[in-house]
Amino acid sequence: MLTGHNFIGARESAVGTKTFTGVNPTSGEDLPTTFTEATVGEVAEASALATQAFDAYRDTRPEQRATFLETIADEILALGDELLERASDETALPASTRLTGERGRTCNQLKLFAAVVRDGSWVDARIDHANPDRTPFPKPDVRSCLNAIGPVAVFGASNFPLAFSTAGGDTASALAAGCPVVCKAHPAHPGASELVSRAILAAAKKTGMPDGVYSMIHGGNDAGLALVNDPHIKAVGFTGSLGGGRAIYNAAAARPEPIPVYAEMGSINPVFMLPGALAERADTIGAGLADSITLGVGQFCTNPGLILAEADEATQTLVASTVNALNESADGTMLTAGIHAAYEAGVSALATKTERLTESGQAALFQTDAPTFLSTPELSHEVFGPSSLLVTGTRAELLKIAENLEGHLTATIHGTEEDLASAADLITILEKKVGRIVANGFPTGVEVCHAMVHGGPYPATTDPRSTSVGTGAILRFARPVCYQNLPDALLPPALQEANPEGLNRLVDGNRT
Amino acid sequence: MLTGHNFIGARESAVGTKTFTGVNPTSGEDLPTTFTEATVGEVAEASALATQAFDAYRDTRPEQRATFLETIADEILALGDELLERASDETALPASTRLTGERGRTCNQLKLFAAVVRDGSWVDARIDHANPDRTPFPKPDVRSCLNAIGPVAVFGASNFPLAFSTAGGDTASALAAGCPVVCKAHPAHPGASELVSRAILAAAKKTGMPDGVYSMIHGGNDAGLALVNDPHIKAVGFTGSLGGGRAIYNAAAARPEPIPVYAEMGSINPVFMLPGALAERADTIGAGLADSITLGVGQFCTNPGLILAEADEATQTLVASTVNALNESADGTMLTAGIHAAYEAGVSALATKTERLTESGQAALFQTDAPTFLSTPELSHEVFGPSSLLVTGTRAELLKIAENLEGHLTATIHGTEEDLASAADLITILEKKVGRIVANGFPTGVEVCHAMVHGGPYPATTDPRSTSVGTGAILRFARPVCYQNLPDALLPPALQEANPEGLNRLVDGNRT
Repeated sequence: MLTGHNFIGARESAVGTKTFTGVNPTSGEDLPTTFTEATVGEVAEASALATQAFDAYRDTRPEQRATFLETIADEILALGDELLERASDETALPASTRLTGERGRTCNQLKLFAAVVRDGSWVDARIDHANPDRTPFPKPDVRSCLNAIGPVAVFGASNFPLAFSTAGGDTASALAAGCPVVCKAHPAHPGASELVSRAILAAAKKTGMPDGVYSMIHGGNDAGLALVNDPHIKAVGFTGSLGGGRAIYNAAAARPEPIPVYAEMGSINPVFMLPGALAERADTIGAGLADSITLGVGQFCTNPGLILAEADEATQTLVASTVNALNESADGTMLTAGIHAAYEAGVSALATKTERLTESGQAALFQTDAPTFLSTPELSHEVFGPSSLLVTGTRAELLKIAENLEGHLTATIHGTEEDLASAADLITILEKKVGRIVANGFPTGVEVCHAMVHGGPYPATTDPRSTSVGTGAILRFARPVCYQNLPDALLPPALQEANPEGLNRLVDGNRT
Repeated sequence: MLTGHNFIGARESAVGTKTFTGVNPTSGEDLPTTFTEATVGEVAEASALATQAFDAYRDTRPEQRATFLETIADEILALGDELLERASDETALPASTRLTGERGRTCNQLKLFAAVVRDGSWVDARIDHANPDRTPFPKPDVRSCLNAIGPVAVFGASNFPLAFSTAGGDTASALAAGCPVVCKAHPAHPGASELVSRAILAAAKKTGMPDGVYSMIHGGNDAGLALVNDPHIKAVGFTGSLGGGRAIYNAAAARPEPIPVYAEMGSINPVFMLPGALAERADTIGAGLADSITLGVGQFCTNPGLILAEADEATQTLVASTVNALNESADGTMLTAGIHAAYEAGVSALATKTERLTESGQAALFQTDAPTFLSTPELSHEVFGPSSLLVTGTRAELLKIAENLEGHLTATIHGTEEDLASAADLITILEKKVGRIVANGFPTGVEVCHAMVHGGPYPATTDPRSTSVGTGAILRFARPVCYQNLPDALLPPALQEANPEGLNRLVDGNRT
């Protein structure tokens, strides 16, 4: 069924000469189907078509757009085992467990955004009524709501070939906001990307969406930068490495018209182990920690890469429990040969500067002390994979490490009620450093819900004001537009006096 | 009373060697008091002190912060005529009319933000309750709300020495959000800046705010860039020229940690004159247009710099009415000699490429046809001052001009009910081009209210997702933080189960 073509809207196109294949990371062998990278011309065609589709798409009624999103979920499910098997062949992630679960998450995410669109109140409708009698100047009628920002470029992640890729959170939230999407398929799972793109395009056709509401191109850095630099593109969603995200951010900031870039670039997700919790249940915490470190072969943005604990006996129990579990964990195939090589290099570098506590298997726990950590900046760099670094020190030293943290997606605290009650100073620091603070859990497992924040200060992301998971993600692809003294019939339905969509609105400063 | 010093928090400092004075633009003479530019070291001190103040300030309760904002308004009023006279001496804006009104606007703006802070619901509190029974994984308790982003750098505008400057909308919204402010005083009104800064600092002292919640530095580009590049600064508010705003944006984007820049850089604010409206009341519209063009000597970001009309008889009436009023308008002194020179140069350049309709006075109306306008990009550049360009063409040509517009703060349409009903195509275009669409009014006069959007796509601003006027401006200086499974007592009050602040919240997807 795969053709290896790009999709300029519904039209397949493959005029370029550069080709590549998917690779099975387990066997190292090429997978069937040759994919053709998009030319700069094809990138421009897709972006221009997205702009052509924009007016018709942003004018779709909430019900139509919600049905489109739900139909995408249906079409993805209808791909059946072919999708799970191809994605598994391309990523080495197990089809029957992980990818089945990830598909469910992807479809539920689309349905959650459909519910948000149908509810409609996300547009933050605000109405300030006129007062013609005000002196010295009459007060005009002023109304505003969020409008779709324009065509969005989406760069899928390698580590979630479904939930953070082609029809993942960025695409779902951009489409929900009313923005056409041009997706650059991740070259590590081009087959899964094509299949999911076919599902999106089938849903667009079934629900009567304009051609160009979705396009998908294959390619590397050149195609990606051409997409970011295309004047039709008005925002970018990206999940991946710091280097890749920063390059895209820099390109977007240097455009004649700079555009917002939402790059989620991962982090090392510090975990603070407070003494009471360790005294009470170091064994259990260690086992849970090892599970979190090795989940998905450690290839999660929220992987706990830094453990902080005071140097006491209970910490030794934590170490023993974690190391034991890590030593017993099965090695896994990583997503790509490049990721595997980077992991090996990262682990080797850590071994030269810290003490390796685990045996020679894949999963690794290292240990160092706070002064060494504070004086060795490289130890703060993310090692993408099933590795973590334990830093021991006094409470004051650990607080200093917290103060010195760069931005992270998450920070976790394990503590008894008493521990936590006396950790207000730590929480105050972490609120400035991360997008999400987790108590007595593990950072992996990002709930898709209204209150989730999967984001954080740089370098976790390029935009600390945003989340890439949860319904708040829709706000990334919208901007407010204000209407002054317009006749009611010409206002968007969200702002019409009769409130035909039944939205929650801010009217003269009061919630209605 | 003026000392000409910088304020590092409450402490006066003037260690630099570069000095300057305020200049009376009417007489060209230096005004009393020598001001000392801040050194790079002083900029760093102010920024570091802002960070020191941040924890205590963001933890203030809404009531405390609201009282602080209201006290600033009281202290500004308490400055009495000294402020109005000094500001008038520095800007040539009349004290008894314009500046008295602007002071009222500034104080009301502070009070409006106080009301927003007291209400509290702006923090977008979201709660998703746990479900321990969910399979395959229990659902955690997830809560999020907006937190202050950190210390904010504010660059005041020259054209509103009170409402868009030292204690203007940027400062008011940043302080409301819980962010300390380091303000770079505009060098065109250093005395007014010092007086207003004293008012802010007096209010901070009276209401027990931490030292460093507000600092003010004098200086030019060097001090400004040092401030933007300071790692303690987490966001920037700016109102001024495209060149200045873009330079600040570029510097912020090139930082090791890029930060959001909200630069409002003005625009030419197209006004579309539809035929029915002109047939009905071209005279009245022309008179109103001339008033809007000359308001504040044309020195408004929302000044109508581009008029679009079909070439018919009614348009001739509009021209006659506008030209007549402009010819009769009194010349005014511009804010600075530099602004005056730039205006003269801009007007001279327009005269070489278009036809000047007005006589040789200060206010100027030029005319050209649509093909010339479309083929001469310079004609789209803002000429800051009381000048406007009328472009005539067919309806199709005017729609093409609309399609080709860059981002603007506003677009205005004059039309009868019938005109407007058939202008859906035009409105659809303008929704993508501007922050605010005005019907049958003029773009000058920006209402400070909940629904106002004073923003728009680049180059009107560097961030189309934001407004710099109205209560939505507070959202610029906040970012969401999420709390997973935290004990209730450790949550911010906005997220505690009992809702002690009585906020409007999104609980399990429902507004409460």
